[in-house]
Amino acid sequence: MTLSKSYTAALIVIGNEILSGRTREKNINYIAIKMVERGIRLVEVRVIPDKEDVIISAVRALKDEADYLFTTGGIGPTHDDITALSIAKALGVSLVKDEQAYEILEAHYGGFKNFTEPRQKMAYVPDGSVLIPNPVSKAPGFVCENVYVLAGVPRIMQAMMEHVVLMIQGGDVVRSQTVVCPYIESVIAQGLSVIQERYEAKGVEIGSYPYFKENSFGTNIVLRSSNSAVMAQCVKEVEGLVSLS
Amino acid sequence: MTLSKSYTAALIVIGNEILSGRTREKNINYIAIKMVERGIRLVEVRVIPDKEDVIISAVRALKDEADYLFTTGGIGPTHDDITALSIAKALGVSLVKDEQAYEILEAHYGGFKNFTEPRQKMAYVPDGSVLIPNPVSKAPGFVCENVYVLAGVPRIMQAMMEHVVLMIQGGDVVRSQTVVCPYIESVIAQGLSVIQERYEAKGVEIGSYPYFKENSFGTNIVLRSSNSAVMAQCVKEVEGLVSLS
Repeated sequence: MTLSKSYTAALIVIGNEILSGRTREKNINYIAIKMVERGIRLVEVRVIPDKEDVIISAVRALKDEADYLFTTGGIGPTHDDITALSIAKALGVSLVKDEQAYEILEAHYGGFKNFTEPRQKMAYVPDGSVLIPNPVSKAPGFVCENVYVLAGVPRIMQAMMEHVVLMIQGGDVVRSQTVVCPYIESVIAQGLSVIQERYEAKGVEIGSYPYFKENSFGTNIVLRSSNSAVMAQCVKEVEGLVSLS
Repeated sequence: MTLSKSYTAALIVIGNEILSGRTREKNINYIAIKMVERGIRLVEVRVIPDKEDVIISAVRALKDEADYLFTTGGIGPTHDDITALSIAKALGVSLVKDEQAYEILEAHYGGFKNFTEPRQKMAYVPDGSVLIPNPVSKAPGFVCENVYVLAGVPRIMQAMMEHVVLMIQGGDVVRSQTVVCPYIESVIAQGLSVIQERYEAKGVEIGSYPYFKENSFGTNIVLRSSNSAVMAQCVKEVEGLVSLS
């Protein structure tokens, strides 16, 4: 079995509105699924407030932990949109006017009069950035080094992500398979632990998730691997365990 | 104006299933709202995998950052439930059998035969812990120092949280008020920034959140403060700004 390089990603969700409970976070799951599809492992997510020093230290902590670091939120025109400047500071570069972003925004806001100072602010990115197109509301995201800076509004973030997946490289796609077990976790825990031990080195990861439905309960046993042959063997063993329990 | 102590909380969501996109995270928002109701500010959330070294370093990083640190996930009976042991290691104490937890579980699983080793595992907590009752599925959570360890299944976590809110102390309750602005963010950005600057020292925080609905768009301007008189003044000014825009 040849091992190809494995790729990792981390995500920083920037937004007081998530931490205050006002807004329900909707981007983590979408990004997690996109990464799986691309063969990239999401290793950590942090939700932090719109505060410069907190953004800077989170970016510095995570940009070397993962191949790709994504951020969502804080790239609009208002006073609480401080992501671009904070990222520039975290990376030790200046915030510069991007001529292409300026033109896109100027065209969108229809001439000089409507293209106010707060809107112009959205044309400033860390020096050395490449823009990420925003087909929904025009103000672009950007990538600087390995940091991909996206909008927080889900439909805009998702549109940007369509471009991002073409910009990044992934590894072998990890697939998952679920064995439904009609007993609670503790019934199969011991047997499962033995199977996990044997398959760990072969690259199969096993998770066990209790479920409660209206009139039933049980456990979903989820197997994850990029090797489908080994996965099939392991699924068989888990099914055997469940049927004997 | 007398300033009372302000309280903070942080949350660690432990779970590969969130990072792989298999499960949509459902606890952050619930906990965020509970904290607001209790006058506690949620300052950071981290989503991390079920890995001992990662759990240990996240607990150590956040337990001194906030008055209360919550964790969700990984306290069941299976091999991937490693939260209790990892927390014990993070706090430098041993994992010990809790007699009360043992009795609760033994009674629940109806005698010796059904009370298997994996189930017994759920009676082990870091030395010095106090139990958090679990009326749903019995296996308790626990608090050790300022770390509150809760289940990951939302309905169990929520039942545990009912007890936790009685165990912790909060500060002045921060209330929020929303001014709906029928224009996109950039129209009011400049004026809003002036108002925010004036009210920041008085303890009002202003956030601005674009919305897109089927046939309309605009901006929700959210003001947050624990001082209702100052808040009312600030709301008036923001409403004035919107009506003049």
